[in-house]
Amino acid sequence: MLEIKRISQLSKQERRAILNRSSARMAETMERIRPIVEKVAQEGDSAVIEYTERFDGVRLKPEEFFVPQEQIEQAWGETDDELKIALSLCHSNIRNFHRDIKTHLASGWAKTYSTGSEKDRWVCGIMPTAVDRAAGYVPGGTAAYPSTALMVSVPAFAAGVGDFVITTPPREAGTVPQAVLAAAKIAGVTRILRVGGAQAIAALAFGTETIPQVDVVVGPGNVFVTAAKAYLSALGVVGIDFPAGPSEVVIIADNSARVESVAFELLAQAEHDRDAASVLLTDNEAFASAVRERVLALIETAERADIVRASLKDYGSILLCDDLDEAVSFSNAYAPEHLQIWVADELAVLSKIRHAGSIFVGEWAPVAVGDYVSGTNHVLPTGGSARFTSGVSVSTFLKYPTVQKLSRGGLASLAPAVAKVSTAEGFYSGHGRSVQQRLKEKSSDAQDTTETLLKFLNR
Amino acid sequence: MLEIKRISQLSKQERRAILNRSSARMAETMERIRPIVEKVAQEGDSAVIEYTERFDGVRLKPEEFFVPQEQIEQAWGETDDELKIALSLCHSNIRNFHRDIKTHLASGWAKTYSTGSEKDRWVCGIMPTAVDRAAGYVPGGTAAYPSTALMVSVPAFAAGVGDFVITTPPREAGTVPQAVLAAAKIAGVTRILRVGGAQAIAALAFGTETIPQVDVVVGPGNVFVTAAKAYLSALGVVGIDFPAGPSEVVIIADNSARVESVAFELLAQAEHDRDAASVLLTDNEAFASAVRERVLALIETAERADIVRASLKDYGSILLCDDLDEAVSFSNAYAPEHLQIWVADELAVLSKIRHAGSIFVGEWAPVAVGDYVSGTNHVLPTGGSARFTSGVSVSTFLKYPTVQKLSRGGLASLAPAVAKVSTAEGFYSGHGRSVQQRLKEKSSDAQDTTETLLKFLNR
Repeated sequence: MLEIKRISQLSKQERRAILNRSSARMAETMERIRPIVEKVAQEGDSAVIEYTERFDGVRLKPEEFFVPQEQIEQAWGETDDELKIALSLCHSNIRNFHRDIKTHLASGWAKTYSTGSEKDRWVCGIMPTAVDRAAGYVPGGTAAYPSTALMVSVPAFAAGVGDFVITTPPREAGTVPQAVLAAAKIAGVTRILRVGGAQAIAALAFGTETIPQVDVVVGPGNVFVTAAKAYLSALGVVGIDFPAGPSEVVIIADNSARVESVAFELLAQAEHDRDAASVLLTDNEAFASAVRERVLALIETAERADIVRASLKDYGSILLCDDLDEAVSFSNAYAPEHLQIWVADELAVLSKIRHAGSIFVGEWAPVAVGDYVSGTNHVLPTGGSARFTSGVSVSTFLKYPTVQKLSRGGLASLAPAVAKVSTAEGFYSGHGRSVQQRLKEKSSDAQDTTETLLKFLNR
Repeated sequence: MLEIKRISQLSKQERRAILNRSSARMAETMERIRPIVEKVAQEGDSAVIEYTERFDGVRLKPEEFFVPQEQIEQAWGETDDELKIALSLCHSNIRNFHRDIKTHLASGWAKTYSTGSEKDRWVCGIMPTAVDRAAGYVPGGTAAYPSTALMVSVPAFAAGVGDFVITTPPREAGTVPQAVLAAAKIAGVTRILRVGGAQAIAALAFGTETIPQVDVVVGPGNVFVTAAKAYLSALGVVGIDFPAGPSEVVIIADNSARVESVAFELLAQAEHDRDAASVLLTDNEAFASAVRERVLALIETAERADIVRASLKDYGSILLCDDLDEAVSFSNAYAPEHLQIWVADELAVLSKIRHAGSIFVGEWAPVAVGDYVSGTNHVLPTGGSARFTSGVSVSTFLKYPTVQKLSRGGLASLAPAVAKVSTAEGFYSGHGRSVQQRLKEKSSDAQDTTETLLKFLNR
């Protein structure tokens, strides 16, 4: 387990095995969830009831789908004070960071353009708007994930979503863990749907008699949840964050890093589940050996030792690189969900990073602090999809419609290009003439009023 | 055709029929393209050759997949001067607007947070990065779409993508339309792949011996192209813009709008294809009647009269509203690709719009000017997906990794919350201890260096 290998000496197969990590057999799983999705779309509540009974062993009436408000209040009241304080700190930090992102990345904006003359101008801009309704999946089973309840809902509220549903599989007797209810309470979520699996995603994507249709569904889940999200997104029925798979970390470290702390990082990642992946990249052979030794020793003290061992055996790697550039290059090819940079010259490495979900820099930034409380999100792209997508954030719940307004002169200055290109495309008859016609008609208001839009979007 | 109806008097079925418009039977189409996608993934070039011969009637050798550079230069040289000038104006306007969006929406950013004490602080921020490689689909068939060649490539270059491929089905004898090559030349695209259909998308998503793997594929196409994009995105193999369907416009007009110009807007939309949808919403009955009369007359002068007639018959609507708020509400439910607002009080309407791909305001903003040359993009979400997604833009090609760095005091101030919540989730052994361990070790560098990351990300 965790045999140390040199990157430059990996065979093609070895390299591919590390880069590919666990793949979720999505094609097959999408086939399997299709009948569930279709039945929920057609039959609504009754299909939700049937699948919840079959998969979760709980028979719910439609009026029991949502957790009653008093049960949420009661859970909050019964939560111990330390957990209340901890969840409140998580909540306020996540909220502050995501609100700041909103301010920075989601303000309206417009600019005046022209072909040269002062009179021939037009305004183009963007007008960010939030989706109307969204939902977040919180995994269930034996564990409780209050942190995920915060991570899915807080960015939505920061984006301006008014209507947010948390959906989570019911336990025996239809209960939802107290800590999840407490986190929902802090976040201001009033609707908690106790339905899980593909049936939850389908019900929210299509809407049923009792369950509202939402525009976006985010959050982690098992392979059926992930496949349902991916499939319904492909149908164009609902927006999603991304198909999320097992968790993963890449650590780039030199001998300025501390052995014991790095060993704990690998351990923390591996305890997620047996498909989680952990990779250490270092230019220092003695450091690599020392970390390996500590990890092997620490497994014995781990609460979830079987899971940790299985995960590190199949998806754990300690790789030696000739220099840190080689580590960066491997990390970019891997495109990890979490990337930890713990080297003497941090910015030299950071500035070359192209693909990662969330990046943790230096001695005082363990991944767990971002998992819970520093303010960044823990719902992040896995399996290499950080090559092309980002973690859950305010932008997950926003669209950016473009807006334009032209002066008469502006349109006149652009009309010849429309005429020429639309003719080349065989669309002059409608497209080309639609522009010519505007310029033909006598206008009662030929003055330039583009300024009003400029001010409105930049307000 | 285009019988005038009052929104408040639509039956549920009528309302649903208008809102649902054309749907592409994606589930079935995804089934049909699956074998193509799988064969390309397994067999690479030879499968691309086989499908291109079968579907496009052209047998290409791998060394003929890409259009030779001299052929692009030759096409540019032979393009008539007016078209060159027109395409150049389109290009520079699209480039300017998308570069400005990049400046506004994609700059790095970070902020210092703390729990109160000056020493207990940490920095969180974002570090936008472009994808490495992207591709854009330009539909083929009998028509040529140089404008689409610009719309898919220019935002990618503005985002910072270094490697961009245009893919388009070959015509007889393997040619690509001159105007498309000319547009690619202006945009700076050097790789033009003459492969179309699902086989093109699969080849770019997986890579073959000859065709590079890309991270994102965008652009419009027929149902097979759309289904392949959606399916491969669901598998997590490649990022896409969205599954785009037939084009559509909603026009909100009062009697300040001009009859003939509005009639041409409906006509321009309907000439796209027989599944295109056009909806006029107005509070003025006389205006509605006048527009209807002009549209019916203009169809006779349309070049693509059969397509226009079929489109307006099945997906054209003129709807009367009691007031403009009712029009806004219907438009938001429709979530149109293109929205035209032509009313006396424009901003009153615009400020209530929540869902649309691209918005055209006032007398001098026909949709066609944005289709070609004002600078906004014409690859936009259709079929109601503007509820939750945006048109192609720089952000289509960017990711926003989060980055954090903490001071020792910052980590210490957050550690109790990590301990408490990770315990509640059953992850103290790895997650909780990974934080405790950091604080246990003696540090040679306990001073606060978070400032360096702050400066780096805000640079």
